[in-house]
Amino acid sequence: MAAQEEATPVPSAPEAMRRPSLVLFDVNETLSDMSVMGQRFADVGAPSQLAVTWFASLLRDGFALTAAGASASFAELGSGLLGVQLAGLSLDRGLTAAVEHIMDGFTSLELHPDVVPGIAALADLGLRLVTLSNGSASVAAGLFERAGIKDRFEQLLSVEDAGVWKPAPGSYRYALDRCEVKASETMLVAVHPWDIDGASRAGLTTAWLNRTGSPYPGYFRRADVEVEALGPLAQILT
Amino acid sequence: MAAQEEATPVPSAPEAMRRPSLVLFDVNETLSDMSVMGQRFADVGAPSQLAVTWFASLLRDGFALTAAGASASFAELGSGLLGVQLAGLSLDRGLTAAVEHIMDGFTSLELHPDVVPGIAALADLGLRLVTLSNGSASVAAGLFERAGIKDRFEQLLSVEDAGVWKPAPGSYRYALDRCEVKASETMLVAVHPWDIDGASRAGLTTAWLNRTGSPYPGYFRRADVEVEALGPLAQILT
Repeated sequence: MAAQEEATPVPSAPEAMRRPSLVLFDVNETLSDMSVMGQRFADVGAPSQLAVTWFASLLRDGFALTAAGASASFAELGSGLLGVQLAGLSLDRGLTAAVEHIMDGFTSLELHPDVVPGIAALADLGLRLVTLSNGSASVAAGLFERAGIKDRFEQLLSVEDAGVWKPAPGSYRYALDRCEVKASETMLVAVHPWDIDGASRAGLTTAWLNRTGSPYPGYFRRADVEVEALGPLAQILT
Repeated sequence: MAAQEEATPVPSAPEAMRRPSLVLFDVNETLSDMSVMGQRFADVGAPSQLAVTWFASLLRDGFALTAAGASASFAELGSGLLGVQLAGLSLDRGLTAAVEHIMDGFTSLELHPDVVPGIAALADLGLRLVTLSNGSASVAAGLFERAGIKDRFEQLLSVEDAGVWKPAPGSYRYALDRCEVKASETMLVAVHPWDIDGASRAGLTTAWLNRTGSPYPGYFRRADVEVEALGPLAQILT
Protein backbone atom coordinates (compact mmCIF):
# COMPACT_ATOMS: atom_id res chain seq x y z
CA MET A 1 0.00 0.00 0.00
CA ALA A 2 2.84 2.37 0.84
CA ALA A 3 4.29 1.75 -2.61
CA GLN A 4 0.90 2.49 -4.20
CA GLU A 5 0.69 5.75 -2.28
CA GLU A 6 3.99 6.85 -3.74
CA ALA A 7 2.78 6.10 -7.25
CA THR A 8 -0.60 7.87 -7.01
CA PRO A 9 -1.49 11.03 -5.09
CA VAL A 10 -4.73 9.60 -3.62
CA PRO A 11 -4.64 6.04 -2.25
CA SER A 12 -7.60 3.93 -3.28
CA ALA A 13 -9.41 1.11 -1.52
CA PRO A 14 -9.04 -2.46 -2.76
CA GLU A 15 -11.79 -3.34 -5.25
CA ALA A 16 -13.37 -5.91 -2.97
CA MET A 17 -13.51 -3.68 0.09
CA ARG A 18 -16.90 -2.38 1.06
CA ARG A 19 -17.02 1.21 2.29
CA PRO A 20 -17.79 1.03 6.01
CA SER A 21 -20.56 3.00 7.70
CA LEU A 22 -18.80 2.85 11.05
CA VAL A 23 -15.10 3.13 11.91
CA LEU A 24 -14.02 1.45 15.14
CA PHE A 25 -10.74 2.74 16.59
CA ASP A 26 -8.33 1.12 18.94
CA VAL A 27 -7.09 3.73 21.45
CA ASN A 28 -3.75 2.95 23.16
CA GLU A 29 -0.89 3.66 20.72
CA THR A 30 -3.35 3.83 17.81
CA LEU A 31 -4.66 7.27 18.80
CA SER A 32 -2.60 8.10 21.91
CA ASP A 33 1.16 8.56 21.76
CA MET A 34 2.45 6.19 24.42
CA SER A 35 6.14 6.84 23.72
CA VAL A 36 6.10 9.40 26.55
CA MET A 37 5.49 6.57 29.05
CA GLY A 38 9.22 5.87 28.87
CA GLN A 39 9.83 9.22 30.59
CA ARG A 40 7.52 8.15 33.44
CA PHE A 41 9.76 5.12 34.03
CA ALA A 42 12.85 7.36 33.94
CA ASP A 43 11.16 9.77 36.39
CA VAL A 44 11.07 7.07 39.08
CA GLY A 45 14.61 5.84 38.39
CA ALA A 46 13.75 2.85 36.17
CA PRO A 47 15.17 2.31 32.66
CA SER A 48 12.95 4.15 30.14
CA GLN A 49 13.08 1.22 27.70
CA LEU A 50 11.31 -0.93 30.33
CA ALA A 51 8.10 0.82 29.19
CA VAL A 52 8.10 -1.21 25.98
CA THR A 53 8.63 -4.54 27.74
CA TRP A 54 6.01 -3.61 30.33
CA PHE A 55 3.35 -2.83 27.73
CA ALA A 56 4.08 -6.02 25.74
CA SER A 57 3.91 -8.02 28.99
CA LEU A 58 0.68 -6.29 30.03
CA LEU A 59 -0.98 -7.35 26.79
CA ARG A 60 0.58 -10.83 27.10
CA ASP A 61 -1.02 -11.29 30.52
CA GLY A 62 -4.34 -9.79 29.45
CA PHE A 63 -4.49 -12.12 26.47
CA ALA A 64 -3.44 -15.05 28.68
CA LEU A 65 -6.43 -14.41 30.95
CA THR A 66 -8.64 -14.13 27.87
CA ALA A 67 -7.31 -17.43 26.50
CA ALA A 68 -7.88 -19.06 29.90
CA GLY A 69 -11.48 -17.81 29.99
CA ALA A 70 -10.96 -15.05 32.56
CA SER A 71 -10.57 -11.28 32.59
CA ALA A 72 -9.15 -8.39 34.60
CA SER A 73 -9.09 -4.65 34.00
CA PHE A 74 -6.30 -2.98 32.06
CA ALA A 75 -5.50 -0.77 35.06
CA GLU A 76 -5.33 -3.77 37.40
CA LEU A 77 -2.93 -5.54 35.05
CA GLY A 78 -0.88 -2.42 34.41
CA SER A 79 -0.31 -1.59 38.05
CA GLY A 80 -0.02 -5.23 39.17
CA LEU A 81 2.63 -5.91 36.56
CA LEU A 82 4.55 -2.74 37.46
CA GLY A 83 4.67 -4.06 41.03
CA VAL A 84 6.42 -7.15 39.65
CA GLN A 85 8.68 -5.52 37.05
CA LEU A 86 9.85 -2.60 39.24
CA ALA A 87 10.56 -4.85 42.24
CA GLY A 88 14.28 -5.09 42.90
CA LEU A 89 15.13 -1.96 40.91
CA SER A 90 16.74 0.99 42.64
CA LEU A 91 13.93 3.57 42.51
CA ASP A 92 13.89 7.16 43.72
CA ARG A 93 10.66 6.61 45.69
CA GLY A 94 8.63 3.79 47.24
CA LEU A 95 7.23 1.07 44.97
CA THR A 96 3.60 2.13 45.46
CA ALA A 97 4.39 5.75 44.62
CA ALA A 98 6.41 4.68 41.58
CA VAL A 99 3.57 2.51 40.26
CA GLU A 100 1.13 5.38 40.82
CA HIS A 101 3.37 7.86 38.99
CA ILE A 102 3.67 5.62 35.95
CA MET A 103 -0.04 4.72 35.82
CA ASP A 104 -0.90 8.42 36.13
CA GLY A 105 0.87 8.84 32.80
CA PHE A 106 -2.28 7.51 31.10
CA THR A 107 -4.20 10.60 32.24
CA SER A 108 -1.88 13.01 30.42
CA LEU A 109 -1.19 11.23 27.13
CA GLU A 110 -1.55 13.23 23.93
CA LEU A 111 -2.83 12.24 20.52
CA HIS A 112 -0.52 11.53 17.59
CA PRO A 113 -0.29 14.65 15.35
CA ASP A 114 -2.36 13.07 12.54
CA VAL A 115 -5.33 12.24 14.79
CA VAL A 116 -7.14 15.57 15.19
CA PRO A 117 -7.19 16.43 11.45
CA GLY A 118 -7.71 12.77 10.49
CA ILE A 119 -10.71 12.32 12.79
CA ALA A 120 -12.18 15.58 11.48
CA ALA A 121 -11.78 14.39 7.88
CA LEU A 122 -13.39 11.03 8.67
CA ALA A 123 -16.25 12.71 10.55
CA ASP A 124 -16.82 15.06 7.61
CA LEU A 125 -17.39 12.00 5.42
CA GLY A 126 -20.44 11.19 7.55
CA LEU A 127 -18.89 8.06 9.01
CA ARG A 128 -19.89 6.94 12.49
CA LEU A 129 -16.78 7.02 14.72
CA VAL A 130 -16.52 4.77 17.80
CA THR A 131 -13.61 3.57 19.94
CA LEU A 132 -13.11 0.08 21.39
CA SER A 133 -10.25 -0.10 23.89
CA ASN A 134 -8.76 -2.82 26.05
CA GLY A 135 -8.28 0.07 28.49
CA SER A 136 -11.01 2.01 30.24
CA ALA A 137 -13.47 4.30 28.46
CA SER A 138 -12.57 7.07 30.91
CA VAL A 139 -8.94 7.17 29.71
CA ALA A 140 -10.20 7.55 26.14
CA ALA A 141 -12.68 10.24 27.21
CA GLY A 142 -9.95 12.26 28.95
CA LEU A 143 -7.68 11.94 25.93
CA PHE A 144 -10.32 13.30 23.56
CA GLU A 145 -11.53 16.01 25.96
CA ARG A 146 -8.00 17.40 26.30
CA ALA A 147 -7.74 17.50 22.49
CA GLY A 148 -11.24 18.93 22.04
CA ILE A 149 -12.50 16.11 19.77
CA LYS A 150 -14.69 14.08 22.11
CA ASP A 151 -17.88 15.16 20.31
CA ARG A 152 -16.58 13.61 17.09
CA PHE A 153 -17.16 10.15 18.57
CA GLU A 154 -20.57 8.53 18.81
CA GLN A 155 -19.49 6.16 21.62
CA LEU A 156 -16.37 5.28 23.59
CA LEU A 157 -16.46 1.56 24.35
CA SER A 158 -14.26 -0.60 26.57
CA VAL A 159 -13.83 -4.36 26.70
CA GLU A 160 -14.41 -3.97 30.43
CA ASP A 161 -18.10 -4.10 29.52
CA ALA A 162 -17.61 -6.96 27.06
CA GLY A 163 -16.15 -9.42 29.55
CA VAL A 164 -13.39 -10.42 27.14
CA TRP A 165 -10.42 -8.50 25.75
CA LYS A 166 -9.63 -7.93 22.14
CA PRO A 167 -8.70 -9.94 20.08
CA ALA A 168 -11.33 -12.48 21.30
CA PRO A 169 -14.29 -12.54 18.88
CA GLY A 170 -16.70 -11.59 21.68
CA SER A 171 -15.03 -8.21 22.15
CA TYR A 172 -15.76 -7.14 18.57
CA ARG A 173 -19.26 -8.64 18.70
CA TYR A 174 -19.91 -6.56 21.81
CA ALA A 175 -19.03 -3.36 19.92
CA LEU A 176 -21.14 -4.36 16.89
CA ASP A 177 -24.10 -5.12 19.15
CA ARG A 178 -23.77 -1.84 21.02
CA CYS A 179 -23.62 0.07 17.74
CA GLU A 180 -26.28 -2.07 16.03
CA VAL A 181 -24.07 -2.49 12.98
CA LYS A 182 -22.97 -5.48 10.92
CA ALA A 183 -19.35 -6.65 10.93
CA SER A 184 -19.19 -6.19 7.17
CA GLU A 185 -20.15 -2.50 7.54
CA THR A 186 -17.49 -1.84 10.17
CA MET A 187 -13.79 -1.03 9.78
CA LEU A 188 -11.37 -1.57 12.66
CA VAL A 189 -8.42 0.84 12.69
CA ALA A 190 -5.38 -0.12 14.78
CA VAL A 191 -1.60 0.04 14.93
CA HIS A 192 -1.44 -3.44 16.49
CA PRO A 193 -1.33 -6.42 14.12
CA TRP A 194 -2.98 -8.65 16.76
CA ASP A 195 -6.02 -6.34 16.69
CA ILE A 196 -6.16 -6.38 12.88
CA ASP A 197 -6.00 -10.18 12.96
CA GLY A 198 -8.74 -10.59 15.56
CA ALA A 199 -11.08 -8.09 13.90
CA SER A 200 -10.53 -9.73 10.51
CA ARG A 201 -11.40 -13.13 11.95
CA ALA A 202 -14.54 -11.55 13.46
CA GLY A 203 -15.59 -10.41 9.97
CA LEU A 204 -14.71 -6.71 10.14
CA THR A 205 -12.90 -4.75 7.46
CA THR A 206 -9.51 -3.63 8.75
CA ALA A 207 -7.06 -0.76 8.32
CA TRP A 208 -3.54 -1.09 9.66
CA LEU A 209 -2.17 2.25 10.77
CA ASN A 210 1.59 1.91 10.25
CA ARG A 211 3.15 5.25 11.16
CA THR A 212 6.69 3.89 11.41
CA GLY A 213 7.03 1.91 8.18
CA SER A 214 7.24 -1.36 10.12
CA PRO A 215 6.99 -4.76 8.40
CA TYR A 216 3.80 -6.73 9.16
CA PRO A 217 4.21 -10.09 10.92
CA GLY A 218 3.38 -12.89 8.50
CA TYR A 219 1.58 -15.04 11.07
CA PHE A 220 -1.33 -12.58 11.41
CA ARG A 221 -4.07 -11.95 8.89
CA ARG A 222 -3.23 -8.92 6.79
CA ALA A 223 -5.30 -5.75 6.88
CA ASP A 224 -7.57 -4.77 3.99
CA VAL A 225 -5.79 -1.43 3.77
CA GLU A 226 -2.54 -0.06 5.17
CA VAL A 227 -2.05 3.66 5.79
CA GLU A 228 0.69 5.72 7.40
CA ALA A 229 -1.74 8.21 8.99
CA LEU A 230 -5.47 8.86 9.44
CA GLY A 231 -5.55 11.52 6.70
CA PRO A 232 -4.79 9.02 3.91
CA LEU A 233 -7.44 6.70 5.40
CA ALA A 234 -10.05 9.46 4.99
CA GLN A 235 -8.93 9.85 1.36
CA ILE A 236 -9.40 6.12 0.76
CA LEU A 237 -12.89 6.19 2.25
CA THR A 238 -14.01 9.26 0.30
CA MET B 1 6.20 -20.06 50.99
CA ALA B 2 9.66 -18.54 50.99
CA ALA B 3 9.04 -17.36 54.54
CA GLN B 4 7.95 -20.86 55.56
CA GLU B 5 11.09 -22.31 54.06
CA GLU B 6 13.20 -20.05 56.21
CA ALA B 7 11.35 -21.14 59.31
CA THR B 8 11.52 -24.91 58.68
CA PRO B 9 14.27 -26.92 57.02
CA VAL B 10 11.91 -28.96 54.86
CA PRO B 11 9.04 -27.15 53.12
CA SER B 12 5.71 -28.89 53.42
CA ALA B 13 2.76 -29.05 51.07
CA PRO B 14 -0.46 -27.25 51.97
CA GLU B 15 -2.90 -29.52 53.84
CA ALA B 16 -5.45 -29.51 51.06
CA MET B 17 -3.00 -30.37 48.28
CA ARG B 18 -3.18 -33.86 46.91
CA ARG B 19 0.14 -35.48 46.08
CA PRO B 20 0.29 -35.71 42.29
CA SER B 21 1.08 -38.87 40.37
CA LEU B 22 2.30 -36.92 37.38
CA VAL B 23 4.35 -33.72 37.19
CA LEU B 24 3.89 -31.65 34.03
CA PHE B 25 6.74 -29.21 33.32
CA ASP B 26 6.77 -26.10 31.26
CA VAL B 27 10.06 -25.96 29.27
CA ASN B 28 11.16 -22.48 28.07
CA GLU B 29 12.62 -20.56 31.03
CA THR B 30 11.19 -23.09 33.49
CA LEU B 31 13.81 -25.74 32.65
CA SER B 32 15.99 -24.00 30.05
CA ASP B 33 18.03 -20.92 30.87
CA MET B 34 16.97 -18.41 28.24
CA SER B 35 19.06 -15.55 29.63
CA VAL B 36 21.78 -16.47 27.11
CA MET B 37 19.45 -15.44 24.27
CA GLY B 38 20.46 -11.84 25.00
CA GLN B 39 23.96 -12.70 23.75
CA ARG B 40 22.49 -13.92 20.47
CA PHE B 41 20.93 -10.48 19.96
CA ALA B 42 24.24 -8.82 20.81
CA ASP B 43 26.04 -11.16 18.35
CA VAL B 44 24.08 -9.71 15.42
CA GLY B 45 24.45 -6.10 16.57
CA ALA B 46 21.06 -5.69 18.30
CA PRO B 47 20.62 -4.56 21.94
CA SER B 48 20.82 -7.62 24.21
CA GLN B 49 17.87 -6.39 26.31
CA LEU B 50 15.65 -6.68 23.22
CA ALA B 51 15.58 -10.43 23.97
CA VAL B 52 13.23 -9.83 26.92
CA THR B 53 10.84 -7.63 24.92
CA TRP B 54 10.94 -10.10 22.04
CA PHE B 55 10.00 -13.07 24.23
CA ALA B 56 7.18 -11.17 25.96
CA SER B 57 5.90 -10.04 22.53
CA LEU B 58 6.17 -13.57 21.14
CA LEU B 59 3.95 -14.88 23.93
CA ARG B 60 1.63 -11.86 23.52
CA ASP B 61 1.11 -12.70 19.85
CA GLY B 62 0.76 -16.44 20.49
CA PHE B 63 -1.87 -15.78 23.16
CA ALA B 64 -3.60 -13.27 20.85
CA LEU B 65 -3.98 -15.95 18.19
CA THR B 66 -5.24 -18.36 20.86
CA ALA B 67 -7.79 -15.79 22.09
CA ALA B 68 -8.88 -15.18 18.48
CA GLY B 69 -9.37 -18.92 17.92
CA ALA B 70 -6.29 -19.49 15.78
CA SER B 71 -2.79 -20.89 16.21
CA ALA B 72 0.72 -20.79 14.77
CA SER B 73 3.94 -22.53 15.75
CA PHE B 74 6.32 -21.06 18.31
CA ALA B 75 9.13 -21.07 15.73
CA GLU B 76 6.97 -19.28 13.16
CA LEU B 77 6.08 -16.59 15.68
CA GLY B 78 9.62 -16.31 16.99
CA SER B 79 11.22 -15.80 13.61
CA GLY B 80 8.35 -13.74 12.18
CA LEU B 81 8.49 -11.36 15.12
CA LEU B 82 12.28 -11.06 14.88
CA GLY B 83 11.78 -9.97 11.28
CA VAL B 84 9.61 -7.13 12.61
CA GLN B 85 11.60 -6.17 15.69
CA LEU B 86 15.05 -6.27 14.07
CA ALA B 87 13.90 -4.28 11.01
CA GLY B 88 15.46 -0.83 10.96
CA LEU B 89 18.26 -1.76 13.39
CA SER B 90 21.84 -1.54 12.28
CA LEU B 91 22.86 -5.22 12.19
CA ASP B 92 26.20 -6.79 11.36
CA ARG B 93 24.62 -9.18 8.82
CA GLY B 94 21.49 -9.51 6.68
CA LEU B 95 18.10 -9.71 8.38
CA THR B 96 17.48 -13.34 7.39
CA ALA B 97 20.88 -14.42 8.73
CA ALA B 98 20.32 -12.45 11.95
CA VAL B 99 16.92 -14.09 12.52
CA GLU B 100 18.46 -17.49 11.88
CA HIS B 101 21.33 -16.88 14.30
CA ILE B 102 18.97 -15.88 17.09
CA MET B 103 16.50 -18.73 16.50
CA ASP B 104 19.44 -21.18 16.43
CA GLY B 105 20.01 -20.16 20.04
CA PHE B 106 17.16 -22.50 21.02
CA THR B 107 19.20 -25.49 19.91
CA SER B 108 22.05 -24.77 22.33
CA LEU B 109 20.24 -23.68 25.50
CA GLU B 110 21.30 -25.24 28.78
CA LEU B 111 19.27 -26.26 31.80
CA HIS B 112 19.17 -24.21 34.99
CA PRO B 113 21.63 -25.69 37.54
CA ASP B 114 18.85 -27.06 39.79
CA VAL B 115 17.16 -29.04 36.99
CA VAL B 116 19.37 -32.15 36.63
CA PRO B 117 19.47 -32.96 40.38
CA GLY B 118 15.85 -31.82 40.84
CA ILE B 119 14.52 -34.02 38.04
CA ALA B 120 16.52 -36.96 39.41
CA ALA B 121 15.03 -36.42 42.89
CA LEU B 122 11.50 -36.21 41.49
CA ALA B 123 12.02 -39.31 39.34
CA ASP B 124 13.34 -41.19 42.37
CA LEU B 125 10.01 -40.52 44.08
CA GLY B 126 8.31 -42.60 41.40
CA LEU B 127 6.50 -39.62 39.91
CA ARG B 128 5.66 -39.64 36.21
CA LEU B 129 7.49 -36.71 34.56
CA VAL B 130 6.15 -35.11 31.35
CA THR B 131 6.75 -31.77 29.62
CA LEU B 132 4.17 -29.56 27.92
CA SER B 133 5.69 -26.71 25.94
CA ASN B 134 4.34 -23.92 23.78
CA GLY B 135 7.52 -24.58 21.81
CA SER B 136 8.29 -27.70 19.82
CA ALA B 137 8.90 -31.10 21.38
CA SER B 138 12.17 -31.35 19.42
CA VAL B 139 13.66 -28.34 21.23
CA ALA B 140 12.83 -30.00 24.55
CA ALA B 141 14.28 -33.31 23.35
CA GLY B 142 17.55 -31.65 22.33
CA LEU B 143 17.77 -29.83 25.64
CA PHE B 144 17.39 -33.03 27.65
CA GLU B 145 19.64 -35.11 25.39
CA ARG B 146 22.48 -32.62 25.79
CA ALA B 147 22.06 -32.83 29.57
CA GLY B 148 21.67 -36.62 29.57
CA ILE B 149 18.26 -36.65 31.30
CA LYS B 150 15.89 -37.40 28.43
CA ASP B 151 15.12 -40.87 29.76
CA ARG B 152 13.78 -39.35 32.96
CA PHE B 153 10.74 -38.10 31.06
CA GLU B 154 7.84 -40.32 30.06
CA GLN B 155 6.72 -37.97 27.25
CA LEU B 156 7.66 -34.61 25.77
CA LEU B 157 4.48 -32.89 24.61
CA SER B 158 3.94 -29.73 22.58
CA VAL B 159 0.83 -27.60 22.14
CA GLU B 160 1.56 -27.90 18.42
CA ASP B 161 -0.35 -31.19 18.67
CA ALA B 162 -3.07 -29.68 20.88
CA GLY B 163 -4.16 -26.99 18.42
CA VAL B 164 -4.22 -24.34 21.16
CA TRP B 165 -1.46 -22.76 23.21
CA LYS B 166 -1.22 -22.72 26.95
CA PRO B 167 -2.92 -21.18 28.91
CA ALA B 168 -6.10 -22.17 27.01
CA PRO B 169 -7.89 -25.00 28.87
CA GLY B 170 -7.65 -27.28 25.81
CA SER B 171 -3.86 -27.32 25.99
CA TYR B 172 -3.85 -28.83 29.48
CA ARG B 173 -6.70 -31.20 28.60
CA TYR B 174 -4.63 -32.42 25.66
CA ALA B 175 -1.76 -33.32 27.99
CA LEU B 176 -4.07 -35.02 30.49
CA ASP B 177 -5.68 -37.06 27.70
CA ARG B 178 -2.33 -38.09 26.26
CA CYS B 179 -1.14 -39.19 29.71
CA GLU B 180 -4.49 -40.70 30.72
CA VAL B 181 -4.38 -38.89 34.04
CA LYS B 182 -6.87 -36.74 35.92
CA ALA B 183 -6.30 -33.01 36.39
CA SER B 184 -6.48 -33.47 40.17
CA GLU B 185 -3.60 -35.98 40.02
CA THR B 186 -1.38 -33.68 37.96
CA MET B 187 0.91 -30.85 39.06
CA LEU B 188 2.00 -28.17 36.59
CA VAL B 189 5.42 -26.68 37.33
CA ALA B 190 6.29 -23.35 35.69
CA VAL B 191 8.14 -20.09 36.21
CA HIS B 192 5.41 -18.17 34.36
CA PRO B 193 2.45 -16.94 36.38
CA TRP B 194 0.19 -17.08 33.27
CA ASP B 195 0.87 -20.83 33.05
CA ILE B 196 0.12 -21.33 36.76
CA ASP B 197 -3.14 -19.41 36.32
CA GLY B 198 -4.28 -21.36 33.27
CA ALA B 199 -3.39 -24.75 34.77
CA SER B 200 -5.17 -23.86 37.99
CA ARG B 201 -8.32 -22.91 36.08
CA ALA B 202 -8.05 -26.24 34.23
CA GLY B 203 -8.10 -28.05 37.60
CA LEU B 204 -4.44 -28.98 37.96
CA THR B 205 -2.37 -28.57 41.10
CA THR B 206 0.34 -25.98 40.54
CA ALA B 207 3.87 -25.21 41.68
CA TRP B 208 5.38 -21.81 40.94
CA LEU B 209 9.12 -22.04 40.43
CA ASN B 210 10.40 -18.64 41.52
CA ARG B 211 14.19 -18.73 41.26
CA THR B 212 14.61 -14.97 41.47
CA GLY B 213 12.48 -14.07 44.49
CA SER B 214 10.03 -12.17 42.29
CA PRO B 215 6.63 -10.99 43.58
CA TYR B 216 3.61 -12.80 42.09
CA PRO B 217 1.14 -10.69 40.08
CA GLY B 218 -2.11 -10.38 42.01
CA TYR B 219 -4.36 -10.70 38.96
CA PHE B 220 -3.44 -14.35 38.39
CA ARG B 221 -4.53 -17.33 40.47
CA ARG B 222 -1.85 -18.20 42.97
CA ALA B 223 0.04 -21.49 42.87
CA ASP B 224 -0.61 -24.23 45.41
CA VAL B 225 3.07 -24.23 46.28
CA GLU B 226 5.97 -21.89 45.61
CA VAL B 227 9.56 -23.10 45.47
CA GLU B 228 12.87 -21.48 44.56
CA ALA B 229 14.24 -24.62 42.86
CA LEU B 230 13.23 -28.14 41.85
CA GLY B 231 15.07 -29.73 44.81
CA PRO B 232 12.72 -28.19 47.40
CA LEU B 233 9.75 -29.31 45.25
CA ALA B 234 10.95 -32.91 45.50
CA GLN B 235 11.18 -32.48 49.29
CA ILE B 236 7.57 -31.22 49.40
CA LEU B 237 6.35 -34.17 47.35
CA THR B 238 8.23 -36.79 49.40
